[in-house]
Amino acid sequence: MKATIMYGAGDVRVEEVADPVIQHPTDAIVRTVRTCICGSDLHPYHSMRPSSHGQSMGHELLGVVEETGPEVTTVKKGDLVIAPFAWSDNTCPTCRDGFQTACPHGGFYATRQTAGLQAELSRIPLADGSLVPVPGVTEDDTPVLPSLLTLSDVYLTGYHAAFMARVRPGQTVTVVGDGAVGLSAVLAAKQLGAETIILMGRHRARTDLGVEWGATHVVPERGDEGVQRVLAITDGLGSHAVLEAVGHMPAYEQSYRVARTGGVISRVGVPQYEEAGVGFRSLFGRNLTLTGGPAPVRAYIEDAIPQVLEGTIEPGRVFDVTMPIDDVPAGYAAMDARDALKVLVTV
Amino acid sequence: MKATIMYGAGDVRVEEVADPVIQHPTDAIVRTVRTCICGSDLHPYHSMRPSSHGQSMGHELLGVVEETGPEVTTVKKGDLVIAPFAWSDNTCPTCRDGFQTACPHGGFYATRQTAGLQAELSRIPLADGSLVPVPGVTEDDTPVLPSLLTLSDVYLTGYHAAFMARVRPGQTVTVVGDGAVGLSAVLAAKQLGAETIILMGRHRARTDLGVEWGATHVVPERGDEGVQRVLAITDGLGSHAVLEAVGHMPAYEQSYRVARTGGVISRVGVPQYEEAGVGFRSLFGRNLTLTGGPAPVRAYIEDAIPQVLEGTIEPGRVFDVTMPIDDVPAGYAAMDARDALKVLVTV
Repeated sequence: MKATIMYGAGDVRVEEVADPVIQHPTDAIVRTVRTCICGSDLHPYHSMRPSSHGQSMGHELLGVVEETGPEVTTVKKGDLVIAPFAWSDNTCPTCRDGFQTACPHGGFYATRQTAGLQAELSRIPLADGSLVPVPGVTEDDTPVLPSLLTLSDVYLTGYHAAFMARVRPGQTVTVVGDGAVGLSAVLAAKQLGAETIILMGRHRARTDLGVEWGATHVVPERGDEGVQRVLAITDGLGSHAVLEAVGHMPAYEQSYRVARTGGVISRVGVPQYEEAGVGFRSLFGRNLTLTGGPAPVRAYIEDAIPQVLEGTIEPGRVFDVTMPIDDVPAGYAAMDARDALKVLVTV
Repeated sequence: MKATIMYGAGDVRVEEVADPVIQHPTDAIVRTVRTCICGSDLHPYHSMRPSSHGQSMGHELLGVVEETGPEVTTVKKGDLVIAPFAWSDNTCPTCRDGFQTACPHGGFYATRQTAGLQAELSRIPLADGSLVPVPGVTEDDTPVLPSLLTLSDVYLTGYHAAFMARVRPGQTVTVVGDGAVGLSAVLAAKQLGAETIILMGRHRARTDLGVEWGATHVVPERGDEGVQRVLAITDGLGSHAVLEAVGHMPAYEQSYRVARTGGVISRVGVPQYEEAGVGFRSLFGRNLTLTGGPAPVRAYIEDAIPQVLEGTIEPGRVFDVTMPIDDVPAGYAAMDARDALKVLVTV
């Protein structure tokens, strides 16, 4: 089968590799219908040191079950399924709390344990917990497939930001970052009833989609100027919730500066820093709350599927380019150059 | 009148100073019935550089209104009143949000703007917002006075920690620190329904009061050993909420290590650091929430007064030593030596 392997910064290849096989009785093998490239895949694309054996890539998958291990009970051959970007048992106390990304028995794709999902076939561990069937939909229902795929990561990561910030009707929400996750956070904040949604971003094609999804204001300025713009929009008070979908330190600092006293900063951009300001001058003095983390999309996916199928939301619009799997290297380059917002991959 | 002035580390004096006078039409003059010494007063007691003019001290006050400016409408001469440790208008958007400690028109005592409250008389700015009358109680109702005084800071600071952590019935709560605020946080967590309350502290007389107030476990160990003890008590999962009432970095690090995935760390100990770990390894990876700040006790005080008067809570038990104002320097020394948990001052 074909799979995506990264050999170093800027060096992504699609190669023939052995088909995956059932290794544990709880595994399933899934044939890819749609996969995609994530903004987080660009981190190694920028920085990975050359490697002779390479690193398999991808963690987003909509597919059809091909085979199940003897202990799998909740999905069967032929089911259309979504694979959340982390696998988990979905039964332990941590999963029952709704934080499946930290399941002590689970893990992540494209790691030593499990291959990446930008491939024709994938082995899914703990399939009962890690796959969610989409009843009544087949792989021929083309228009709905992109939005279903976003439930494996990008849309529900944006939703997690808004959920952890406890966005409520009437609130003012600022979204930092106009990437696919930031735009998803706009859509989620709107679903949760935010009245004013300020999108901080400067890429017009992207912010236009943000406006369609509910952003009431777009602030292209950054730093001091951006902060002043947000404060001006909010009567000098700042934003009840700030959804941070970037992960770099300037975005963190911008976030606490535009937050209202007593407000919440909710991060879903993986922080590219370990230490940051949390003392009197940054968070403590104004009773700011800092929250967020890797999105446990598994916790939200069953509620989101009907929203997609009924057309309430169409998060698949973040995909502005579609390519066959052979062209995945060009997809990385297009996202890196910001020629593509997010690349959908067919097989 | 007598007032408390600090001239440098370890150098506190009670001196005769001019009586305060009404400076603004919204001011009130309050005669002290009870005041006290705060753990935070020990920070300058340790570190203040020698000063020839000195620094007035104190921010906790139960007193009787002596005089009001012409624009004061909600309190009158003769009222027994509690002064929250920050003054505020209590009408602006920030105050209405419940964060009066950040009121843009307010401020703190013992600053350039306003003298400290360890004195016989005090000028209270914005008296309508900054004083809360206690109807039906007089300064002769001695037994209830200490608990009423705790509503100006210590008890409601502990309450703020539990409130911001959204402690709910059935949860496990860990309190870091067995000072007066930490013990108050135990009492507040119990009021909010916490089922398991783990108090991390090593001063037996203090932790005994914590147990009376609801602590189900006391963990005297610190560092790795303390973390392992808490994890053992919580089936390896950690605590839903961690109430941090210390303010030093080791307490911060201990807090995120004993928090359950998806849990909350709520700080009310003023952080003696500005930067700290917030990235994947500390907060982000396990979706931990960090919250807290200077307690807006003004927001909670009206609900707490009946709890005190009905005897539901007796937070005044944190006072284990009572001294007249002339002995305040000895009170600082006793708290610094941990001979006293918290010193109540009479005038």
